Amino acid sequence: MTDIQQWLNKHLVRLNLVDEMDYENGFSRPSFSSEEKQAHEVYTEIAKELGLHIYTDEAGNRWATWHVDFYTPTIALGSHLDTVYGGGGYDGVAGVLTALGAIKLLQEHRLEPRKNIAIICFASEESARFGVSTIGSKAISGLLPKEELESVVDSEGITLKEAIETFGLDWNTIDKAEKPQSALESFVELHIEQGTQIEDQQADVGIVRGVACPIRLQITCRGMANHTGTTPMNKRADAFTAIAPLITYVEEQALQMNEQLESPLVATVSTAAIKPNAMNVIPGEVQLGIDIRSVNDEAKHELAERITHYCKTIEQKRAVAIDVHTLVHNDSVFLDNRIQQKLQKASDKLQMKWVAMDSGAGHDVMNMANKWPSGLLFIPCTDGISHHPKEHTSLSDLEKGTRVIAEFLQEEVR
Amino acid sequence: MTDIQQWLNKHLVRLNLVDEMDYENGFSRPSFSSEEKQAHEVYTEIAKELGLHIYTDEAGNRWATWHVDFYTPTIALGSHLDTVYGGGGYDGVAGVLTALGAIKLLQEHRLEPRKNIAIICFASEESARFGVSTIGSKAISGLLPKEELESVVDSEGITLKEAIETFGLDWNTIDKAEKPQSALESFVELHIEQGTQIEDQQADVGIVRGVACPIRLQITCRGMANHTGTTPMNKRADAFTAIAPLITYVEEQALQMNEQLESPLVATVSTAAIKPNAMNVIPGEVQLGIDIRSVNDEAKHELAERITHYCKTIEQKRAVAIDVHTLVHNDSVFLDNRIQQKLQKASDKLQMKWVAMDSGAGHDVMNMANKWPSGLLFIPCTDGISHHPKEHTSLSDLEKGTRVIAEFLQEEVR
Repeated sequence: MTDIQQWLNKHLVRLNLVDEMDYENGFSRPSFSSEEKQAHEVYTEIAKELGLHIYTDEAGNRWATWHVDFYTPTIALGSHLDTVYGGGGYDGVAGVLTALGAIKLLQEHRLEPRKNIAIICFASEESARFGVSTIGSKAISGLLPKEELESVVDSEGITLKEAIETFGLDWNTIDKAEKPQSALESFVELHIEQGTQIEDQQADVGIVRGVACPIRLQITCRGMANHTGTTPMNKRADAFTAIAPLITYVEEQALQMNEQLESPLVATVSTAAIKPNAMNVIPGEVQLGIDIRSVNDEAKHELAERITHYCKTIEQKRAVAIDVHTLVHNDSVFLDNRIQQKLQKASDKLQMKWVAMDSGAGHDVMNMANKWPSGLLFIPCTDGISHHPKEHTSLSDLEKGTRVIAEFLQEEVR
Repeated sequence: MTDIQQWLNKHLVRLNLVDEMDYENGFSRPSFSSEEKQAHEVYTEIAKELGLHIYTDEAGNRWATWHVDFYTPTIALGSHLDTVYGGGGYDGVAGVLTALGAIKLLQEHRLEPRKNIAIICFASEESARFGVSTIGSKAISGLLPKEELESVVDSEGITLKEAIETFGLDWNTIDKAEKPQSALESFVELHIEQGTQIEDQQADVGIVRGVACPIRLQITCRGMANHTGTTPMNKRADAFTAIAPLITYVEEQALQMNEQLESPLVATVSTAAIKPNAMNVIPGEVQLGIDIRSVNDEAKHELAERITHYCKTIEQKRAVAIDVHTLVHNDSVFLDNRIQQKLQKASDKLQMKWVAMDSGAGHDVMNMANKWPSGLLFIPCTDGISHHPKEHTSLSDLEKGTRVIAEFLQEEVR
């Protein structure tokens, strides 16, 4: 194990609040929970050990700064430390850890930066608790829909506002976390890929061109609930048998469209709620949630159209009414070309093989890119498994990521 | 409105604990709830007003007896007063109400019965709260699996044992409610049809031959949960797209089999649980509940076999493992021929058109039939709607049912 691997390993477990990585039960540090806060405290300790200056903004993002002076630009890095429930120990942590590790490397090389370097530990990136993602980076980049969020609740009925105040923040001022354009020169996030493109191409890192933001549809199919035993087969308005072919259709259409598309599309019927969901009652209502992603926004839109049309054909054949509601319709985010080139150059210099790719998942960087030239560097995770206790990235891959970030920084702050 | 219709209407609302029938929100008197108990108290009042003797057994069934003497046989009638959540005001109530109404008619005719007549108000017929149906009649007929039931809980974590003790009973002695074969000569239940066969054939009542008890299957399809945005379409093990065609298959097969069957079969995929059921995660596990009913036990078994085979073909095509678990496998219950003939005779005498039919739903009578010669009389409910606030049976149909029961009783106790 190299020195930097030892350092990364030691701080990986610290940031995960454990003595050894737990690949069985995983990690649960939900948004604005005491566990997320505890991880932020550990991050603060490590940053202080590296001599960095700590500042917490109004949305709970923690900024660790290698401060040069007030009149020089700031180069920012960062990711998050919250997790889904029973998630892995690398999603988010990898970005924070490698940014700290890069500072460590640069200090060992006695670098004297001519620009400020800031690591941002974003608050509450995962949507698992409140159904809202990237709250911290939305606040920094001025994208927080505060009014809409006030009444959002978790599964225990705790409002986001209450959780934020328990976290030690003031709901009334969280939007004050917004920073002016002049505050940063650029932003780069490192994240685990959560896919297998780097592995598949036997590369070391991925340099992201675009982030495929989703279209999300909520399909509600209403038939008529009735007794399973007393309602003849030909007198039913079963909402589940009516809508079931749509599940197959979504997959078929995505596969078919991919034959023609350069940037692939993914589409998933990921949620379902059956009412009344009782063994002796015919389903009277079925609600399906569909997630469609591609950096090709036209293709996403096309599939959403096809789904809407297919639902109409079902309505014509069956005694059901189907409502197609667009929950989310976000255009893809394209990252800064110059930052991509700089990350390529840094990788080349270190003789690491990089692949240009798109991200199917959203990250804090997509908000930051709205305001600042931004980049996203991927490192592999085994078999693409993520949001799962088995999520894993080797120390060797964490080292590679750290070195690319350090090389990039060194050039930027020269 | 006839006198007896007035009487039925007055006592219908009393038993439903209201002043007027509520067709908007329906009725919620779950098993062993304070609402069920309150309905039992009202039943007791009405029975006492009719001069009947009240006795509550160890399982909470209330027996209202027109007592002649200890050495003469007892003719029993009965149904239940509990409901599903937001159910109708006739399922169960109709049987209790018309039995009381029949006593009222016989008393008006100054009948002097030579046998005892008992109306049993069964405790806890609906499975909506604890997932267990017909608890009271199971206890009377010695079919209560007490050990299995001890740890059964409702959606709020209250055990059946706790609910029963709150209801005022002693869990340790509920099985003492079992009655010897000699206790009753026969049992007849009146129930709303919860289907439309009587309506469709423009008849007045239905006389049931057999009760189609279900086969219930629990299908668990396990794939692999993964990120919806980062997992390419061709690298997925989506449990939902894998199992979805089964939903269509079950309906297709039931329709196809019915072309050949004399006693029709019904099959319903009535429940579904998706894990993790999150918008950005591919379904890793899907559990479906299937309810199959017919008085033709062979046909039920055949469909269950076909479903099991179909799941094997899915496993061969997809990266999923499918487990088919039989939750319930009950053979149909056939009712007593002599009682059917007596109910036919009573209907004929009153110039009512009766249809011989099967019941797709289970009722308390199926347990009673295990020990005593038993019958089941159906009266229509509008459009077959049941387990729903809109459930409705006209006073005219309630009167017809009351008169058939009174006529049947008069012959029996002569």
